Amino acid sequence: MMPAVHDIDLDAYLDRERRHVDAALGRVLDDGLNGAPAAVAEPVRYAVGGGGKRLRPILCVAAYTAVRADDDGVVPAAMYELAASLELIHGYSLVHDNLPCMDDDDVRRGRPSTHRAFDTPLAVVAGSAMIPLACRTAARAARALSLAEPTVSALVRELCVAAGAGGMVGGQVADLEAEGRQLDADELASVHRRKTGALLTAALRMGGLAAGAGPAQLAALDAYGRSVGLAFQIADDLLDVTGTEEVLGKKAGRDSDLAKATFPTLLGVEDARRRAEKEVDAALAAIEAAGLSSRELDALARFTVERDR
Amino acid sequence: MMPAVHDIDLDAYLDRERRHVDAALGRVLDDGLNGAPAAVAEPVRYAVGGGGKRLRPILCVAAYTAVRADDDGVVPAAMYELAASLELIHGYSLVHDNLPCMDDDDVRRGRPSTHRAFDTPLAVVAGSAMIPLACRTAARAARALSLAEPTVSALVRELCVAAGAGGMVGGQVADLEAEGRQLDADELASVHRRKTGALLTAALRMGGLAAGAGPAQLAALDAYGRSVGLAFQIADDLLDVTGTEEVLGKKAGRDSDLAKATFPTLLGVEDARRRAEKEVDAALAAIEAAGLSSRELDALARFTVERDR
Repeated sequence: MMPAVHDIDLDAYLDRERRHVDAALGRVLDDGLNGAPAAVAEPVRYAVGGGGKRLRPILCVAAYTAVRADDDGVVPAAMYELAASLELIHGYSLVHDNLPCMDDDDVRRGRPSTHRAFDTPLAVVAGSAMIPLACRTAARAARALSLAEPTVSALVRELCVAAGAGGMVGGQVADLEAEGRQLDADELASVHRRKTGALLTAALRMGGLAAGAGPAQLAALDAYGRSVGLAFQIADDLLDVTGTEEVLGKKAGRDSDLAKATFPTLLGVEDARRRAEKEVDAALAAIEAAGLSSRELDALARFTVERDR
Repeated sequence: MMPAVHDIDLDAYLDRERRHVDAALGRVLDDGLNGAPAAVAEPVRYAVGGGGKRLRPILCVAAYTAVRADDDGVVPAAMYELAASLELIHGYSLVHDNLPCMDDDDVRRGRPSTHRAFDTPLAVVAGSAMIPLACRTAARAARALSLAEPTVSALVRELCVAAGAGGMVGGQVADLEAEGRQLDADELASVHRRKTGALLTAALRMGGLAAGAGPAQLAALDAYGRSVGLAFQIADDLLDVTGTEEVLGKKAGRDSDLAKATFPTLLGVEDARRRAEKEVDAALAAIEAAGLSSRELDALARFTVERDR
């Protein structure tokens, strides 16, 4: 393991960041749902709410802060709005993944999933409505940060590519195709690299781009994102085996119900845990080599494998 | 009726424009689906193909040309790509509207709808993948047109607002809510103004913005879009009563099957037709007052009510 850069009170840090992200999401929704019928505004608010970890937005802001290490440390409100665009994409993917025709999950974040709290047609359209809202949130926040036009466009592109057919959606499809099939660990890693990794990596890269990172810094954030994304997914698989619905806020044991290939089933619980830790080490080595180590990125990488939900 | 500005060979014009739009869609998909698994790329291509009217992109380019009346009439390739972003949003809305949990339509554009040609999970994710592709297509095309940063942002915003909870999706929800309920003609017009009108209006406004239209011109294009959108929907309702599946490329008589309120059922066929013609007159009057009359916008407004599919 890489040595810890500094200690940090992780819970307090995550709490504070979550509050900033939630406040930004509130502003974005107030503006974005202005004039929308209540019948669609309510499921969108429901899907965004509910106490998510906000990991993607928090990683985005942590990358921004790491690149701006010489600054006064003040993060502009618009930066949290840019980060909130990632949570809107993540939230839509949960709504659609939970649908009866997809994973058919009734519980998410400890309460009925969106199609159970409302109905399936509303969950389909509310999920879809979150995508253009995410895109214009990214464009607007980037402008509010007074970034140059090429950077504004790069940020919109980064989010949209990650959310699209070559990114997260491609991973969802690969995941659907893999159900009931025997994957090896490399194939499984490739599925997760898209499904979870694409948006996590975009979070890091967007934070870097907004902070004016150069190519080497962006490549390091990218490598960090890929490794942390994979570690996060392995930890998710482990929690599905070892966790309970009460703590997870979603049904445990879903993967074996769906006969899904997971790292614990392929490698065993212990080796899967070691693989996740190796990925965390790789993530920390990548940012250290680029001079981007920070207490926050360090703690977040460890959090992905040490969390209990 | 307003007098026709000039005559135009409508079929030849629509054919030529459709070819330009289809070529732009081809370029956009080749780029946007690069690196995507075939399992998601194929349903996206299927959903975009299939001989749509391409009315929204064609309206977008016609608005651009009307504002640029003094130009040499050459439309840059990037303008058709900007216009193609509207077709991607329209295409996704058809894929999701046809789903079993929504309108449950098996036939669209004369062939199996996307969830019938593939399956429901793939149709859900392919439809969703088209939204971020549309957003980044708009952003990229706007940059390729060398527009100033505020105009690039305004174009992305225009598309995303129209595609979102306050626009098209709000209309879908209002439409779902209205099934089996008695609406009056004003309520019905309000549903359609969102469901069809939001994206049609965005098409006109985006063409105007890209051409550098001033506020009065944008307001006129907006009024034209709202009236033509309503006329288009009334014509759709009339075709559902009077058309056949063979010509329509989708099932006829769906509205009465679903007990949906329509203009022909509320006003009778003849009065509905007259209302559509009144909207066309209003559309033409709005652009004439702003000095934006053109053979193309004139012909397109009439086409919306005179078409047979």
